[in-house]
Amino acid sequence: MKFEEKQRQYIKTVEDSLAESIKLENPYYPSLRAAMEYSLMAGGKRLRPVLALAVAEMLEKDIRDVLAFACSIEMIHTYSLIHDDLPAMDNDDYRRGKLTNHKVFGEATAILAGDALLNLAYENMIEDAIASKNSRKLEAMGIIAKYAGAQGMIGGQAIDLDSEGKSIPEDKLKAMHRLKTGALIKAPVEAAAVISGANDNEFRLLSGFAANLGLAFQIKDDILDVEGSMDNMGKKPGSDALSLKTTYVTMYGLEEASNLLRNVTDEGVSYLQSFGERAHFLRDLAISLVKRNS
Amino acid sequence: MKFEEKQRQYIKTVEDSLAESIKLENPYYPSLRAAMEYSLMAGGKRLRPVLALAVAEMLEKDIRDVLAFACSIEMIHTYSLIHDDLPAMDNDDYRRGKLTNHKVFGEATAILAGDALLNLAYENMIEDAIASKNSRKLEAMGIIAKYAGAQGMIGGQAIDLDSEGKSIPEDKLKAMHRLKTGALIKAPVEAAAVISGANDNEFRLLSGFAANLGLAFQIKDDILDVEGSMDNMGKKPGSDALSLKTTYVTMYGLEEASNLLRNVTDEGVSYLQSFGERAHFLRDLAISLVKRNS
Repeated sequence: MKFEEKQRQYIKTVEDSLAESIKLENPYYPSLRAAMEYSLMAGGKRLRPVLALAVAEMLEKDIRDVLAFACSIEMIHTYSLIHDDLPAMDNDDYRRGKLTNHKVFGEATAILAGDALLNLAYENMIEDAIASKNSRKLEAMGIIAKYAGAQGMIGGQAIDLDSEGKSIPEDKLKAMHRLKTGALIKAPVEAAAVISGANDNEFRLLSGFAANLGLAFQIKDDILDVEGSMDNMGKKPGSDALSLKTTYVTMYGLEEASNLLRNVTDEGVSYLQSFGERAHFLRDLAISLVKRNS
Repeated sequence: MKFEEKQRQYIKTVEDSLAESIKLENPYYPSLRAAMEYSLMAGGKRLRPVLALAVAEMLEKDIRDVLAFACSIEMIHTYSLIHDDLPAMDNDDYRRGKLTNHKVFGEATAILAGDALLNLAYENMIEDAIASKNSRKLEAMGIIAKYAGAQGMIGGQAIDLDSEGKSIPEDKLKAMHRLKTGALIKAPVEAAAVISGANDNEFRLLSGFAANLGLAFQIKDDILDVEGSMDNMGKKPGSDALSLKTTYVTMYGLEEASNLLRNVTDEGVSYLQSFGERAHFLRDLAISLVKRNS
């Protein structure tokens, strides 16, 4: 099957499951549910859950074994975007070409919708772990929780916050991205590997792939911020430069950042070698991320 | 042992464990950690974790079996207070006589500190569940997650938000309190019961006790909002009336609300009857909540 067709299949599986998860029945708080749904069902590449499904399938497991966890990671990603866009944080009015959550539902509901999506991620993982009796799911949940928390993604957001309007050293820039973006890209790969019963070597290789993929993703984001257009990004380009953020482009220049992007992607893909033909989707996915224009 | 002495013991156990949990080691985000610690270690009655320890001990189990979960519920409670106090939500400057989190650390860090505490609650429960191999812990985690989420506490906050400045019907007021306050009081009691291996009847009795305790707690809060003084409450009294909130006092009047408080407390305590003398701490705790002046 062609990459794009398989990707569309994975995305549809994820979106059907997300739509199912978000059904809350309570007549008293329709706006909370609407706000959660607005951001969760806003489309996008669904990179994180797609990674989880692809890893499970590559390891010759049923993708339904990892679907709940894959969707929970998308919920965690979505909540982080809602909170990141708030006026007190990045103060963004648009996300993927749509008004941000707080612009539609107000700040208070946006805060609660983010909280509720984070909590729902755990509700669904726990429910799935109880139902499946696969004891590795508890371990996978621990991996996701660590990468999502203060020593993972939230830690990265805190570094980002602390770095605004400042020039920051390279090690801090790298730590920020490793945590803020990288952690939640490693999470679905490692969690799916664990649930699928990957052996130590397979786990190590997949983790290496994911670490490089996360870094490549961030470098590309920084490049797109300079090169991108409003049409493609759904937000104003150059917003990093406007806020005086240190990025891979401000640190290395556009050309060197582009070289770094290629090298990091190549290194990531090299981790997939021993999986052979089975890894073709993950390989194509890594390459598609380098080529993306939004 | 006298009630107050036992309560102090439980509180110390909880606070020692919380202080241990909050130790994050990363040189890059000291302000995030400081903000988390500021609110988590701000003292207070520690009602929710104390309930969990007391239930475990009443069921003749080691309180260490429920300690991690008890502390996680306190983290969830704390995060909800941090977010509730934000300018976009209740816009409170003081909490327990101290400046609120965002007044000290700024709104952005307060949002992240709340997020991080919610996530840390799950990190710690998952870690504890993996270490203990008590399969009931996964079930207990599910109970806590449900009560903390959109169909529990956050749902109650959403109703509250939606009701501000409006007169709301009795069924909605009750649903709001059952979720906003009640859910996170049932959580430690039910979770501790499950972890401690309570049988169905014990679970049902403890759950009934907790439901009434939560309702009594809220009615007392509404009464204190009218009667309380700045010294005791650490926030301006009458703030509910100022924001035109519907409360048990605005709905029933002070005298009828006081009667309701006594009845609900009596009903709660009646659920403890069959536990006999073993339930004395929980009984005394319920009575202390009626008598509290802050």
